[in-house]
Parts: sequence; structure tokens; C-alpha cells
Amino acid sequence: MLRRIAIAGLGLIGGSLCLALKRSGPGDAELVGYVRRPEAGERALALGAVDRVEDSLDSAVSGADIVILATPTMSIKDILAQIGPSLPPGCLVTDTASTKVEVMGWAEEYLPATVDFVGGHPMAGKELSGMEAAEADLFVGRTYCLVPGRGASPASVQVATDLVRAIGADPLFITASEHDACVAAVSHLPLVVSSALISATTQSPLWPGMSRLAAGGYRDATRLAAQHPRMNRDICLTNRENILGWIDELLAELGRFRRLIGEGSEAELEQAFLEARQSRQAWQDSNARGD
Amino acid sequence: MLRRIAIAGLGLIGGSLCLALKRSGPGDAELVGYVRRPEAGERALALGAVDRVEDSLDSAVSGADIVILATPTMSIKDILAQIGPSLPPGCLVTDTASTKVEVMGWAEEYLPATVDFVGGHPMAGKELSGMEAAEADLFVGRTYCLVPGRGASPASVQVATDLVRAIGADPLFITASEHDACVAAVSHLPLVVSSALISATTQSPLWPGMSRLAAGGYRDATRLAAQHPRMNRDICLTNRENILGWIDELLAELGRFRRLIGEGSEAELEQAFLEARQSRQAWQDSNARGD
Repeated sequence: MLRRIAIAGLGLIGGSLCLALKRSGPGDAELVGYVRRPEAGERALALGAVDRVEDSLDSAVSGADIVILATPTMSIKDILAQIGPSLPPGCLVTDTASTKVEVMGWAEEYLPATVDFVGGHPMAGKELSGMEAAEADLFVGRTYCLVPGRGASPASVQVATDLVRAIGADPLFITASEHDACVAAVSHLPLVVSSALISATTQSPLWPGMSRLAAGGYRDATRLAAQHPRMNRDICLTNRENILGWIDELLAELGRFRRLIGEGSEAELEQAFLEARQSRQAWQDSNARGD
Repeated sequence: MLRRIAIAGLGLIGGSLCLALKRSGPGDAELVGYVRRPEAGERALALGAVDRVEDSLDSAVSGADIVILATPTMSIKDILAQIGPSLPPGCLVTDTASTKVEVMGWAEEYLPATVDFVGGHPMAGKELSGMEAAEADLFVGRTYCLVPGRGASPASVQVATDLVRAIGADPLFITASEHDACVAAVSHLPLVVSSALISATTQSPLWPGMSRLAAGGYRDATRLAAQHPRMNRDICLTNRENILGWIDELLAELGRFRRLIGEGSEAELEQAFLEARQSRQAWQDSNARGD
């Protein structure tokens, strides 16, 4: 039986996890939050997202059956190095970082053999960040990647799986390297492109006029640029080679469209747009079928 | 007083215009639709979007006070060339195409001096196309560009303005060349990028695995790729130079992000994401203020 769950980081993801667990998690478990800024802790308490807030990591994880690290990716290394001695034996440690290879390496390096690590990454997010934007429904119906650490016991993997199901998400077991290769294409590349789209357009001398005509298409195509800059930086720092490779793939594909627009036949150009539309539709259809 | 409005093309935009005019347009005016496919006309009649359907353009525009061309951009040239002799003197002709320079040229070339042309472009759309996706609210609160043709009378410009206001949109007067330069950046570039993002990722041998991890960010970043391929082709054909210029701007900006990710300092990389986020926020704030 779970008695205590500690959550470090009460931003959009950590806060939403708390709200989701409060609603449908293990009923009797105490939720203990750790945040660096006291006012963030007070807000989480006021919102009923946590039962208790601690201002030290070691106090927060003390006696916890599960420790969830929902802090910026680059901070996870230091936290893992720090909390090791305070973790109860048999404790499950997990995280919510957007990249997994580096995090799994840190866990292996810094955590004692007496605890199990199962990396996690919920495929959910939104334009806003912070506890104010958190919601209990954020993970419902979403894929939640799980990467069991070397030596994680079947029991711990089961605890992580139950946690994911409790918040309404669908667990997907994947290796850290496959995870990072995949999200580089479908999350990190779109993030870089969104940011580049924003800076290319807003830096133009024509922007004051253009901005009046920017509508829903522009808003959606640039939504990912609204993510927290520190999070975006950490994603790039911990998944650099994969992202660079995907930027090159996109540059090549943009070059193909450029040639089709500049020199291609009308039929070839329409065919390129048709194929893109069909591929996107096929993805949405397979999602709807739950493939 | 308006007695008759003819609308050629009953897709997402034409159909939504009909529904919006039915709800809040000039009360007594008859709405006459023209579509090539008889079944599309029957659907529009069944939905109450139009009062009457004609299977010839000349019959449809006969006796009309306003003629709205909501067909694919490249077809507008032929339609303008054809309907000239059937247009009642004093009639206002307008369109809804995504580009304006070419359309204004065709109108000047083919329309008789007895009618007025005011080009139009509603900054509204969505992922779905066709009459089935049409909705009366599509234009509410949206910018609607108006480009008065050479020699269009103030009375005709007023009729066009009233029409735009009647469907809940905000008229914005702009020159054709400024319009096309601006939408190349904020609509057409994102469209090409969305399509290139889709094809770069879905053509990868890793796609079956990646597709399971593609979530809301990927969906939004690629939404514009779901637009109708013929419409996308026509946009590129009629706004080629502007779009090519903006693709080059984006390639340069992607190159900058590539360098920052590969070789930049952590601080520079975070700064680039921060500036993109702030620029996007400033745009959203100015939109909200109605600047």
C-alpha cells in the first residue's frame, strides 16, 4: 500500500500530476510537494494539489514510496545526486523529463542500488506553464512513456504502470534511445521550427503590418515556441545529435518544396501537398483507432 | 436594397459565408449558389445555406447585386472571363482567394467597366474543408482583408464593408501587394513548413514508432498541411516570389538555431528560445488589445 508520494517541481506537469493523483490516485497516500519558491508551494497548498509542502528535498522524499521528479531536465542530475542517501529502500523514483538517455544515465550513476528508477515522459503539454495552468485532465488518453532502469524490479515497474493508469494515461514501454530518437522528430523538431518561424517573421521590418494578418494558422504553427525557454534549452542540450539530424532532414525537405514551388510542375506541387495531407490524415486515423 | 447575392463555390469558405449571411445578412436578399457538382448543391439546399442553386454560372449571377467568388484561386480567372457579359451593371463582384495581386489583375482584365470589383480575403479557416465543415461563426471576430479594385465606387466599397461586418468580421483595407507580402510570411510559409514537417517525419523508416509519440504539439505544428492540396498549390502559384523569399528567411533562421544547438553557449540558446516566446506573447497580447 502506498503511504506517501513526493513530487519535486510543481509546474504544469508536476502540478497536473498532483491534481490527477488527488482525484483518482491511491486514496490514502499523502502527497508531499517540493518547490524552491515558497510562494509556489503556498499556491499548490491553496489549490489542494498537495497535502504538505517541504522546503528541503531530503525532507520531501523522506518516507516516500514514490518520488516523482518534475523539475527542469538539467536540474534532475543534481537532484538525483543529492537525494540518494535520503531515499527509503525499495522506493520507486521516476521523472517526467522530455528526454530519457541522459536522465537514465544520471539515475544509474547517482541512485543507490536500494531504490528502483523507472524513467517517465507524459506526451502531454500545453501553451501555458506553471501551477496556474495545471489540470487534473492533462494526461487523460495520452501516451505516457516508461523506461525501466537497469535492475528495476517487476514490482516497481508495476507501481509505475499503475500510477500512469491512475491518471488516465496509456503506458508505453520504450528504450531510452528509441524514445529520444522519436521525440526528436515529433516534438523537438517542431519546437525548433516553431521558434524559428516566430523569430524569422517577427524580426522583419514588415512585422507590424503582417501581425494584423496572422491568424489561427500562424498561432497553431508557432504554439510550441510558447513553451518555457529553459525547458526548450534543456531538451536541446540533452538530445542534441538527434535534433541536429532532424533539422537537417527538414532543411532537405524544405529545399524540395522550394524547388517544387520555384521550378516544379503544377502537378508535382499539388502531389507534394496531397501526400503531406494524406500522411497526416493516416496518422490521425491510426490515432483514432488506437493503433 | 440588396435583392440577390450569388455565391460561386460552396466549400468551407463559400458555405460558411452563406450560413453567416442567412443568419445575419441583409434579410430579404435571395442567396443563389453555383457549384459544379450537383450533389454539393443539393447538400447546400438541404442545409438551408442557399435559397436556390444554379448549375450555370451565367444563370447564377443574373440579376445579382453582389457576386462572391469562393472557388479555388486558379479557377477565378476563367470565371471572371466568363461571367462578364452576364453581370448586371452596378453589380459588386468580390472573391475570397488567399492571394490578391493576380486576382486583382484578372478582375481588371476581364470585368466590364460597368461593374465594381473589391477583392476580399477572410483570415479564417480550419483543418476541414467542404460544405460539411462550414459554420456560420467562422468569420466572427476575424480580420477580413478588402482590396478595392481600380475604379470601384465608394458605394460598392461600402457594400463590401457592410457585408464583412454583417458576418461578424473586421474589415481591413490593404493593397494587393502588401497583402500578398504579409500572408506569404504568416500563412503561406507556415503552410509550406507544416507540409515539409509532415513529409520529413512520415517518410522516415522510424515513423511507425515515432507516430505513437506524436501528440498535440505535432498535431498543431502540422495542422495547415491538412488544407486542400489544390488550394495550397494555387497559393504557391499565385504568390511564388514572396513565398520563396520567406522560405529563404526561414532556412537562414533554422540555420541559426542549428548552430546554437550544435555549438552555441547554453545562455545563447536559452536566449533564442526566450526571444521567440516573448515575440509570440507580444503578438498575442496586441491581438487581445485589438491593436
